[in-house]
Amino acid sequence: MGDSKEKPTKPIGVAIVGCGYWGPNLIRNFSACPMTNVVTVCDRDQTRLDRVASLCGKAKLVGDVREAFDNPDVDAVAVATPVGTHATLALEALEAGKHVLIEKPMASAVDDAERLVKRARELGLTLMVDHTFIYSPPVKKIKELIDSGELGDIYYVDSVRINLGLFQSDINVLWDLAPHDISIVEHFFGRLPRSLSATGVSHTASDLEDVAYMNLDFGESLVATFHVNWLSPVKIRHTIIGGSQRSLVYNDLDPVETIKIYDRGIEVESTPETRRGLLVSYRTGDIRSPNLPREEPLQNMVTHFAECIRGGKTRWTDGEAGLRVVRIPEAAQRSIKAQGGRITL
Amino acid sequence: MGDSKEKPTKPIGVAIVGCGYWGPNLIRNFSACPMTNVVTVCDRDQTRLDRVASLCGKAKLVGDVREAFDNPDVDAVAVATPVGTHATLALEALEAGKHVLIEKPMASAVDDAERLVKRARELGLTLMVDHTFIYSPPVKKIKELIDSGELGDIYYVDSVRINLGLFQSDINVLWDLAPHDISIVEHFFGRLPRSLSATGVSHTASDLEDVAYMNLDFGESLVATFHVNWLSPVKIRHTIIGGSQRSLVYNDLDPVETIKIYDRGIEVESTPETRRGLLVSYRTGDIRSPNLPREEPLQNMVTHFAECIRGGKTRWTDGEAGLRVVRIPEAAQRSIKAQGGRITL
Amino acid sequence: MGDSKEKPTKPIGVAIVGCGYWGPNLIRNFSACPMTNVVTVCDRDQTRLDRVASLCGKAKLVGDVREAFDNPDVDAVAVATPVGTHATLALEALEAGKHVLIEKPMASAVDDAERLVKRARELGLTLMVDHTFIYSPPVKKIKELIDSGELGDIYYVDSVRINLGLFQSDINVLWDLAPHDISIVEHFFGRLPRSLSATGVSHTASDLEDVAYMNLDFGESLVATFHVNWLSPVKIRHTIIGGSQRSLVYNDLDPVETIKIYDRGIEVESTPETRRGLLVSYRTGDIRSPNLPREEPLQNMVTHFAECIRGGKTRWTDGEAGLRVVRIPEAAQRSIKAQGGRITL
Amino acid sequence: MGDSKEKPTKPIGVAIVGCGYWGPNLIRNFSACPMTNVVTVCDRDQTRLDRVASLCGKAKLVGDVREAFDNPDVDAVAVATPVGTHATLALEALEAGKHVLIEKPMASAVDDAERLVKRARELGLTLMVDHTFIYSPPVKKIKELIDSGELGDIYYVDSVRINLGLFQSDINVLWDLAPHDISIVEHFFGRLPRSLSATGVSHTASDLEDVAYMNLDFGESLVATFHVNWLSPVKIRHTIIGGSQRSLVYNDLDPVETIKIYDRGIEVESTPETRRGLLVSYRTGDIRSPNLPREEPLQNMVTHFAECIRGGKTRWTDGEAGLRVVRIPEAAQRSIKAQGGRITL
Repeated sequence: MGDSKEKPTKPIGVAIVGCGYWGPNLIRNFSACPMTNVVTVCDRDQTRLDRVASLCGKAKLVGDVREAFDNPDVDAVAVATPVGTHATLALEALEAGKHVLIEKPMASAVDDAERLVKRARELGLTLMVDHTFIYSPPVKKIKELIDSGELGDIYYVDSVRINLGLFQSDINVLWDLAPHDISIVEHFFGRLPRSLSATGVSHTASDLEDVAYMNLDFGESLVATFHVNWLSPVKIRHTIIGGSQRSLVYNDLDPVETIKIYDRGIEVESTPETRRGLLVSYRTGDIRSPNLPREEPLQNMVTHFAECIRGGKTRWTDGEAGLRVVRIPEAAQRSIKAQGGRITL
Repeated sequence: MGDSKEKPTKPIGVAIVGCGYWGPNLIRNFSACPMTNVVTVCDRDQTRLDRVASLCGKAKLVGDVREAFDNPDVDAVAVATPVGTHATLALEALEAGKHVLIEKPMASAVDDAERLVKRARELGLTLMVDHTFIYSPPVKKIKELIDSGELGDIYYVDSVRINLGLFQSDINVLWDLAPHDISIVEHFFGRLPRSLSATGVSHTASDLEDVAYMNLDFGESLVATFHVNWLSPVKIRHTIIGGSQRSLVYNDLDPVETIKIYDRGIEVESTPETRRGLLVSYRTGDIRSPNLPREEPLQNMVTHFAECIRGGKTRWTDGEAGLRVVRIPEAAQRSIKAQGGRITL
Repeated sequence: MGDSKEKPTKPIGVAIVGCGYWGPNLIRNFSACPMTNVVTVCDRDQTRLDRVASLCGKAKLVGDVREAFDNPDVDAVAVATPVGTHATLALEALEAGKHVLIEKPMASAVDDAERLVKRARELGLTLMVDHTFIYSPPVKKIKELIDSGELGDIYYVDSVRINLGLFQSDINVLWDLAPHDISIVEHFFGRLPRSLSATGVSHTASDLEDVAYMNLDFGESLVATFHVNWLSPVKIRHTIIGGSQRSLVYNDLDPVETIKIYDRGIEVESTPETRRGLLVSYRTGDIRSPNLPREEPLQNMVTHFAECIRGGKTRWTDGEAGLRVVRIPEAAQRSIKAQGGRITL
Repeated sequence: MGDSKEKPTKPIGVAIVGCGYWGPNLIRNFSACPMTNVVTVCDRDQTRLDRVASLCGKAKLVGDVREAFDNPDVDAVAVATPVGTHATLALEALEAGKHVLIEKPMASAVDDAERLVKRARELGLTLMVDHTFIYSPPVKKIKELIDSGELGDIYYVDSVRINLGLFQSDINVLWDLAPHDISIVEHFFGRLPRSLSATGVSHTASDLEDVAYMNLDFGESLVATFHVNWLSPVKIRHTIIGGSQRSLVYNDLDPVETIKIYDRGIEVESTPETRRGLLVSYRTGDIRSPNLPREEPLQNMVTHFAECIRGGKTRWTDGEAGLRVVRIPEAAQRSIKAQGGRITL
């Protein structure tokens, strides 16, 4: 009884590993979260540690991850290192009995991701991937609308994520931009597509695609198509979700009407007597833009991670989800090489 | 000499065959054009003839096309009948020595279109297809910009043509909407893509696709991708043309800034010494929306037809163009059946 | 009993006087309305009569209005002549026992409008002014929202009606454009403002104002302000209606979301203890764009006129309303001359 | 010679007085500017000094302004205290021989502002007001366009600055929002309007206006009109500048096309023979949105202040400008009380 009272009050001890671009955001948000406490911050580069020192409060700054993994006050490890090191570090942390949060993408290869999922399950530890978008107010709202059945059956998702983009030197536009859309549709439908095809073109000597399209087939007439592009003169972040009852437009660049729900669609007649040409009629209704709360997605994410460790039942962006997200770009890459040939997953 | 003087003053005698949905527009525009004179209007259905009578001035209204084809005052025939009859009627008109304009699509099969092109060439007659869009001010302006080199090398065309659409009872969304985009890119580049792939889904018992994507590969890193959709809650007519010098957005629903030219892009370094990651830099400049003349596309089209007959050298939307446009949806249909497999043209 | 049966079936006989710009629209719409029958069409100019002949069916075309006024089959007269002749013709028609519809503005002077209203009342005849806007779906919807109390108390109306405009040779921008807004707010609130002030500037030798602002004070903290402008590079038709419960934006150029209702506002605390600075809090909620029916405003107007004659109780844009609308620009003109000095109405 | 070489290298010593809302921004920007050096930071509240300590580098933190004014290393004083104390502090600083920068508004009364301008002139010191907007890329660009004559004669300025606003407890919406527009037009035209009128309404018990309009008459048919509003459901920051050659729209909420220049307008015929109705014709041309540099307005401002001290000839937002800006809301307040009566300045 005393125990059950004590537990909730003691915050989860967190070690942040990696203080590059994203690490400081994690430090800040784990520090601000009442359920967690930053115990250790780790980076092999002392300069980086110095730079984040003012954010770290009473946390211990260390150069060797073993100090974090061996520390009994550390309950959970957040891995924010370069993607090539994700798998090794996460596995070590799991073996040391720590819950693990990994920056996206979870791993650079499907094999590695599978190994992590398996090991976390065996050890009964929480494994989560930081797909931050999932914790943003518009995506949360859309998930709600889909799950409540308000949109009816989902017919298609069409997403355009384009701009005059930062060319990456080692990944193409598809690995750069599509994971956002992949994790979002993975979150909406909770399953892998049956197959996919992708096309892409490169306009530089690097041979990395800078314009690409991906088509995911989820079966039952549900498709998701993504256009990603580093060569667009205009910035667009526009997703349409067509449903049998209502449809929805999610424009991430519109701060006021980020989501619009259209009460319109087609009515398909079921009587076999009806002539084919008359099977379809139209319905138009109101357009509604729901008010969205002003929440920090990253704060939502670290809180969710803490709740999962505490035994919360809903588990978003867990290892299985992260694994599914890694499978897609790998397969898409193969499809591009095969000139758009369909890859079964 | 007197002859050469007289000829230009005598207008071209035109017979319009078919008075359904589009026929009256042709009657009106051929009547308004100073270079042409509507001599005969033909439809097998007397009710239709009665309905257009007030538009026809002194033209003879007839029920049998032979009266048009045998009439020596008829120099040219405009065929605006159902697509299944295009080939037969157009061929008869050619054999009767008439110049021919056909409503789009030119024919329902590639074979038929090929036969027409061949016969018109042999007989030295003008054969043209009414791809009206080509004669609209924004498309004319874009053609100019591409041809002048102002955009540089074209990298890609991305077109979205979606709305809550009129379901057709015998053709899918791709045959319904994509021909507009196909004729436009055919006009811009004057050649067929090397290959294409297409995907599509149906959400009604009709099995006709209502959401479809098509990807045309023109070689040399130039691709054109079209999204056509009858199930979109929003109406979009939006084309992006990415170029090495400038890029362009054509929004057919914006009556004020229909075309915007973006003086921005990437600069690719050519020195082999530069590290790969630094090969690309960005350039941003002004955005310009050129003022477009207020012209009637259909009036432009009939005038162009008359000029072609008179021996004008530029020949837009001629038989060859029409044939190319027919090849694409036929191949796309095969690709959809092959689950998006690439079709070489 | 037989009488009550007969009456509804016999349509109201209408004479249209004046076949210039607007007359043909009235002929078409009175002809299409099942409650009315066009009996006579009148214009002193035979050319105009010839031009509209095909629209007139079995109506008698006459050059002299007396033929219309003396005809016992004519129950109602629609006056669509130049504004300077409105008062005389409408009065004659009333004296002949006819119901009268007048094109806007009702008259060029307040005196004339007053005389018409008085005479129609004495004779028990229907007098109506064609403020077409009032019969348009968005304005009807807004009227409904205001009357139902959904917006709460109305705080202000702000309307911007500007474009690169057709300069008129004898009226300024205020007489040209503001009557639309005046008739709309008159319709919403059903009363005159207590006072107004107006400012305007002319940039041509004509001395007619081409940029003007008008501020109407309805008392009880309700104001309506209009910006009208012939020199704007952009066309704007944008009205904001601020209410204590909800606010509304009416954008007449947006065919899809013409009206948006914002469930947001301020909450004013009533407890006297609260410090003044804390009296106000904010509320933000959903935005809703109601689906509007596709109706022809002019058809709605002629039907309403017929219903008024038949004894319908709701009476929109009647003589009193028309009179109120004429008072405003006359007073505004005086305010402009007085450099914006406030005019009490 | 040695002197002239030395001077530019020694940075101007600055004391910042007041560390509330805006003070930290000044500390940061004066620290970042190569021409200036923050010598002293002053606030009577030790807590505030503690809070900004990390920003202050080697600057001395003091509680008494005398320490700043008596310090010979301090060349210039930036006053960022509550408006009621501006005049006294600025005057003391001037008397101590320091150049002075004051937060806007310069003073709460015209008398005070006049005294400061007079004294600075007598002492040969630089006096500047921080109207930050003037240093923003879009406003700088517009100033350039006006000065170059590209727009021709300016006909009118119309600005809408509305949103669901933070109600202030001691100033109305006009004092809160209009100073931005006032300083902008003051900057564009470099002179006071001849007269103004203003109207406003309050919807709370505070009697502070929450919706207001102001009309400034600059003579020669140039007017500037501002709509400011705390009760608008939508946020708008939209300024139209109509010119005889070109017109311009400045939409501060559009990050991509913040300024659009419209090459359109009217052509007024000068021949006296022409009928009045035909005096005006229309011209429509391209729309151009110039690329704007990404600059920090506040950094531009502190650099300009330093350059003015160094003897730079262009002097933006100097004491005279600040004084002119203070005159307007004071007069507007009087006009509102006089029910919109025109106030001559």
